[in-house]
Amino acid sequence: MAFGEDEYRGRLAKVRAAMAEAGIDVLVECDPANMNYLTGYDGWSYYIPQCAVVFEDRDLPLWIGRGMDLSGAHLTCFMPEDHVMAYPEDLFGWADRHPMQFVAAEIAARGGGKRRVGAARDCQQMTPRMRDALAAALPDSRLIDGDLVVNRVRLVKSPAEIVKMREAARIAERVAEAFREGVRPGVRECDVAAELQRVATSGTAEYGGDYPASVPFLLAGPQAHTTHLTWTERRFGANETVCLQFGAVRQRYHCVLARTIHLGKPPAALAELDTIVMEGSEAALQAARPDARCEDVEAAWRKVISRHGLSKEQRIGYPIGIGYPPDWGEGTASFRPGDKTILAPNMTFHLFLGMWSAERSHVASETIRITESGAELLANVPRAMFVKT
Amino acid sequence: MAFGEDEYRGRLAKVRAAMAEAGIDVLVECDPANMNYLTGYDGWSYYIPQCAVVFEDRDLPLWIGRGMDLSGAHLTCFMPEDHVMAYPEDLFGWADRHPMQFVAAEIAARGGGKRRVGAARDCQQMTPRMRDALAAALPDSRLIDGDLVVNRVRLVKSPAEIVKMREAARIAERVAEAFREGVRPGVRECDVAAELQRVATSGTAEYGGDYPASVPFLLAGPQAHTTHLTWTERRFGANETVCLQFGAVRQRYHCVLARTIHLGKPPAALAELDTIVMEGSEAALQAARPDARCEDVEAAWRKVISRHGLSKEQRIGYPIGIGYPPDWGEGTASFRPGDKTILAPNMTFHLFLGMWSAERSHVASETIRITESGAELLANVPRAMFVKT
Repeated sequence: MAFGEDEYRGRLAKVRAAMAEAGIDVLVECDPANMNYLTGYDGWSYYIPQCAVVFEDRDLPLWIGRGMDLSGAHLTCFMPEDHVMAYPEDLFGWADRHPMQFVAAEIAARGGGKRRVGAARDCQQMTPRMRDALAAALPDSRLIDGDLVVNRVRLVKSPAEIVKMREAARIAERVAEAFREGVRPGVRECDVAAELQRVATSGTAEYGGDYPASVPFLLAGPQAHTTHLTWTERRFGANETVCLQFGAVRQRYHCVLARTIHLGKPPAALAELDTIVMEGSEAALQAARPDARCEDVEAAWRKVISRHGLSKEQRIGYPIGIGYPPDWGEGTASFRPGDKTILAPNMTFHLFLGMWSAERSHVASETIRITESGAELLANVPRAMFVKT
Repeated sequence: MAFGEDEYRGRLAKVRAAMAEAGIDVLVECDPANMNYLTGYDGWSYYIPQCAVVFEDRDLPLWIGRGMDLSGAHLTCFMPEDHVMAYPEDLFGWADRHPMQFVAAEIAARGGGKRRVGAARDCQQMTPRMRDALAAALPDSRLIDGDLVVNRVRLVKSPAEIVKMREAARIAERVAEAFREGVRPGVRECDVAAELQRVATSGTAEYGGDYPASVPFLLAGPQAHTTHLTWTERRFGANETVCLQFGAVRQRYHCVLARTIHLGKPPAALAELDTIVMEGSEAALQAARPDARCEDVEAAWRKVISRHGLSKEQRIGYPIGIGYPPDWGEGTASFRPGDKTILAPNMTFHLFLGMWSAERSHVASETIRITESGAELLANVPRAMFVKT
């Protein structure tokens, strides 16, 4: 278990309050990050049906999954053994029956059969078939949207969660160092990507690293202007840009960074872009403080880059913390126009200033914590483009 | 592009035939493995809405995704540029509009607005909200289940796909060697997991490795009887079992292996389990041949282990090939009772004989290809438990 029982009980109290506000009596949660947040469960089993169930009138949630994952759930969930249970194996993988029938029966057995059941409509682990199977097996319940109820509670981190993210930042600093050391002309992209993963998993001498919700996006030369491709076996060239976005993780808590290296003397246009992004990122960081709105952070950035004749279509940040592949974003607030979410202490964001074009590409990002008076960088890694000649 | 255009055109002809059989005129496919199979697209962007669209009356599919992923799609899709398009950024991430509205308009513009549109009901990348948004934007179409139409075509690999899987097997052999070398008392689990990932990503001197659809399941000592947890920072003990399941990948094509190491002299019960699993795996391999059914493979295994008083609840195999996190299974056939799928040459499976209990745990698996007359192991790695004293 990554945390003591008090931490989980505190989260559940907040989630039950949020459920009450959303009119939800029973919440069926399949998102692996939310399941981890609610129960402690940490397994790579979310490719099949499983869930946590939170009742508004019960202290402890249920974990329900496949039989072969029960032993892992017993080791990682904070609840007593009788709150961790498996559906029968023969409900799994057939067209005429579904594990959600077992989940529904357990809900009904606890008085939830005629109540308002929340289930996400826009969560990848809750497929249309799963949601329909749950609804069909709870004919007297009202199935309502349970999207983001837990995610919104996750926005503000506890002190214990911040500790994990700081530990992740120590690992991120090591990965960034390996990036600066490893990239040079003639080396294969796959060999640098390999070393970055080795460092991220190995962690520090004091604690190990965990897997990030995405592999490193190491994108160079002809791929430098792409965003979500992955490394190739190509060798770095003598004069090219290398963009990296990567996550470092401690017990599922992420610190994400993006950095740019240019091999050789950078073209003037790229050096200029670097200067603009540095100025824009500082402006965004200045704007990120309690009581500001998410849109204010983006507006501060936009004011700088538009003065230089540039624009950026995408949001420039989103909350991070717990994450499982394929996504480390929490899915709630965004630094973008129109997002009125008010910043508060111990919110944590990935502030990501990526600027891509066929002519020049540049990525820079920080994982930040909103403090009592501003924003704090979790990792200590020079943000400007690193020129390697 | 991992393959030439002919390979993709051949796949699409088969998929269109399968669509006709399923009564589907237009197929909207969000599964990243299926999108890769149909278009070549290989990006880690499937955490947001994107899809491939196949029309029964058109040769080439569409790729539709987010603007920031367009450059990566142009580099990896085999179709001409006008078949690769982005939805407007302001459709992404809001409650009152959805990228599927753009997808629906493109379908309607190609005459699909009043036809039968297939969309999966049990695919993690097609959330209930996405499916509902598609249906609402195509009011005159009939939305029908498109599950597994592409996956079933993927069951039989082309010669070019088999080449990729053989290359993945060469990488798997190196990872298995690193496992045998790296595990010893006093070493941290995270440091061995780090090295396994380094070797898998680095690949061979001739070609690089790609990321597997799951991180290594390196489970030792108190975690040896779990299935889908991941490494910790604990140090291996002097007398314990270490179970590993891992994927090695070449351009999205997987070779998956599981192997067991025991540190110190194995208890008699564990040595006996190893012998039984070896006998059972040989029986399963003998049964895996063209015209046999999937259930026959499991029956051959079960006959052996039940003679020794053992049983196993789960299926013992499933098709593999292309995979993206969190799943390398193809979701169609299973080696289990009741599965009547008939084996044919160039089907490829992960045959996985995991036996877990609090007293003794053991994993062994092979990636196999069905040949003209039997089954072939793709990787050459001793299957029996490795005893390290």
